[in-house]
Amino acid sequence: MAAWPDRRILEMTSASVPIIQAPMAGSGGVDLAIGAIRGGGVGSLPCALVAPDAIAGQVEAVRAAVDGPVNLNFFCHTLPDAVDDSAWVAALAPYYAELGVGRPAVPPPVRAPFDAVRCAVVEAVRPEIVSFHFGLPDPALLARVKATGARVWSSATTVAEARWLAERGVDAVIAQGFEAGGHSGRFLPVPVGTEMGLFALLPQIVDGVDVPVIAAGGIADARGVVAALALGASAVQVGTAYLLTPESSANVTHRKLLQGPEAEVTRFTNLFTGRLARGLPNRLMEELGPVSDTAPAFPYASNALASLRTEAEKQGSSAFTSMWSGQGAPLAKPMSAEELTRSLAVGALAIMAGMHRETIDA
Amino acid sequence: MAAWPDRRILEMTSASVPIIQAPMAGSGGVDLAIGAIRGGGVGSLPCALVAPDAIAGQVEAVRAAVDGPVNLNFFCHTLPDAVDDSAWVAALAPYYAELGVGRPAVPPPVRAPFDAVRCAVVEAVRPEIVSFHFGLPDPALLARVKATGARVWSSATTVAEARWLAERGVDAVIAQGFEAGGHSGRFLPVPVGTEMGLFALLPQIVDGVDVPVIAAGGIADARGVVAALALGASAVQVGTAYLLTPESSANVTHRKLLQGPEAEVTRFTNLFTGRLARGLPNRLMEELGPVSDTAPAFPYASNALASLRTEAEKQGSSAFTSMWSGQGAPLAKPMSAEELTRSLAVGALAIMAGMHRETIDA
Repeated sequence: MAAWPDRRILEMTSASVPIIQAPMAGSGGVDLAIGAIRGGGVGSLPCALVAPDAIAGQVEAVRAAVDGPVNLNFFCHTLPDAVDDSAWVAALAPYYAELGVGRPAVPPPVRAPFDAVRCAVVEAVRPEIVSFHFGLPDPALLARVKATGARVWSSATTVAEARWLAERGVDAVIAQGFEAGGHSGRFLPVPVGTEMGLFALLPQIVDGVDVPVIAAGGIADARGVVAALALGASAVQVGTAYLLTPESSANVTHRKLLQGPEAEVTRFTNLFTGRLARGLPNRLMEELGPVSDTAPAFPYASNALASLRTEAEKQGSSAFTSMWSGQGAPLAKPMSAEELTRSLAVGALAIMAGMHRETIDA
Repeated sequence: MAAWPDRRILEMTSASVPIIQAPMAGSGGVDLAIGAIRGGGVGSLPCALVAPDAIAGQVEAVRAAVDGPVNLNFFCHTLPDAVDDSAWVAALAPYYAELGVGRPAVPPPVRAPFDAVRCAVVEAVRPEIVSFHFGLPDPALLARVKATGARVWSSATTVAEARWLAERGVDAVIAQGFEAGGHSGRFLPVPVGTEMGLFALLPQIVDGVDVPVIAAGGIADARGVVAALALGASAVQVGTAYLLTPESSANVTHRKLLQGPEAEVTRFTNLFTGRLARGLPNRLMEELGPVSDTAPAFPYASNALASLRTEAEKQGSSAFTSMWSGQGAPLAKPMSAEELTRSLAVGALAIMAGMHRETIDA
């Protein structure tokens, strides 16, 4: 049987294939994680939008269905003390009028940062992996997570971020190319316009840190898996392709656009949360511009949008809905999460075998 | 002996390794092309800044030194009729005062588009390959080039551009990821902020056209060669790594910065020519901002800068000099052009062999 060239993440996680199903807050959950684990990969549960007391139940549901590595993913932002979103509400006023709604009376739950309550959940459920986005929690919380035996991963969008994470003891770095859908994990400020593509970022992070590196961004088929391994990755994290599986909660419009010509163009936008995330363009992005200073700080931009989103979705419109997508969407094909995980792995092994044909050159 | 997985570009060019030395106007030339061909790759002569009557001599010099595939590269922009660069000159006025120079009395030669005179040179010297940047010349000129037997290549930065080129009969498409140094080949307008990384762009172009695809952007070591082949490329085009060879005409400062921490951050700028190109930040980019509406249309931004550049370089400063670099610069190591070409190929074959180890999984 053919071996994977780098077994470090396989040994760290007990996964049988080097495929991490990306945590996708709002689109992933129990069913998706079960499918990925059944396919031999790592199943991830996004926790940023889940109430702390619901996380344990999700982990139990996964474990009742399948044995394998579970990754709990948390965001590490700092919630701003007070947010004035009056300019944002003013910018949205024409839409409130058009749809006949006001700004939400009771704001919906916002993306919550990792904290002591969530840390206690990790201590109780003891997931195999805890991954973070936007850096790492404070050292005391990080020490508690590590004391559970969980392996700690976090995302880097630059070599400097990868070094920062490695110095603080992560067990693996996720090299997130700017091709990735959803939120950029960027947490050390750099000028706009210096985003790095995975092709250049990945080998530089591999060279820059001693821990294994997981490649993310633009990987949606078996070719991408092999390319990432060639550039030095020990495993890959795949997001957008899993949106097309029946186990994701992506809505019908989102799925349709991901499989159409619209998916050839994706953009970073801060309109939906206040922080840059890559997605398919929609009416809000086109009319306000995809990046606006008017949107309040992360994660509060979502508050004033919630009533517009709900009302528009009732009418079958995605005009106010974030539809995250990486640049690899046109490479993805719909199938079950288990089949996707398995086919990425089987396909990658076949490509690697085919790339090394011993022949006599004439 | 191990074979390359895809031999289409090798058969098209008679190169023995799938490495194209990128044409780099201002930094490449006869010596660099000779070295690349001696290493088994394709040697490219950038012609945009070369007087038409000097091109034949360059080709003769290459052919006198080595047998192998020669690529003549031309730009396909349209020269604007009249350019008012008064705003640009005004923006540069403080620098003229500081350096004690005026705007150039006689502007230097600008990057010239492919035209009938240059086409006649192609007909006379009959290079194996003619590659274009910024699209293709008009159909009559393109037909004359093809009638010489030269294979025609051009760069695509989107799948739409690749299809456009394939429909017009190119023999290969160069998939140029946004990681690439120097001028983006973009020629069909798309919104800023929709640039594609090579990791996602390359397989989508491979899927979108029937001709072989050459990968460019961020490839500076053997890992990148393998990754590009895995994503479906038939060959790779490497630029920045060749800047470090003794055969390039990159200056001392440029070489030093390419090998230092500065090369971790590159940016697109339009200040030096009027069109977006990726390079190392310098004083002009920092003080005016890397992208400015004040810079006149391509290629005329370079005119008013010429005297500043000359005077600053006399003082050992690169404050007004474009220093192109791709995002892969930190991956490159200085060596001769022949050795670089050979080591990219030998290293890639070794990686491919290593990725396919038949073992018994315990």
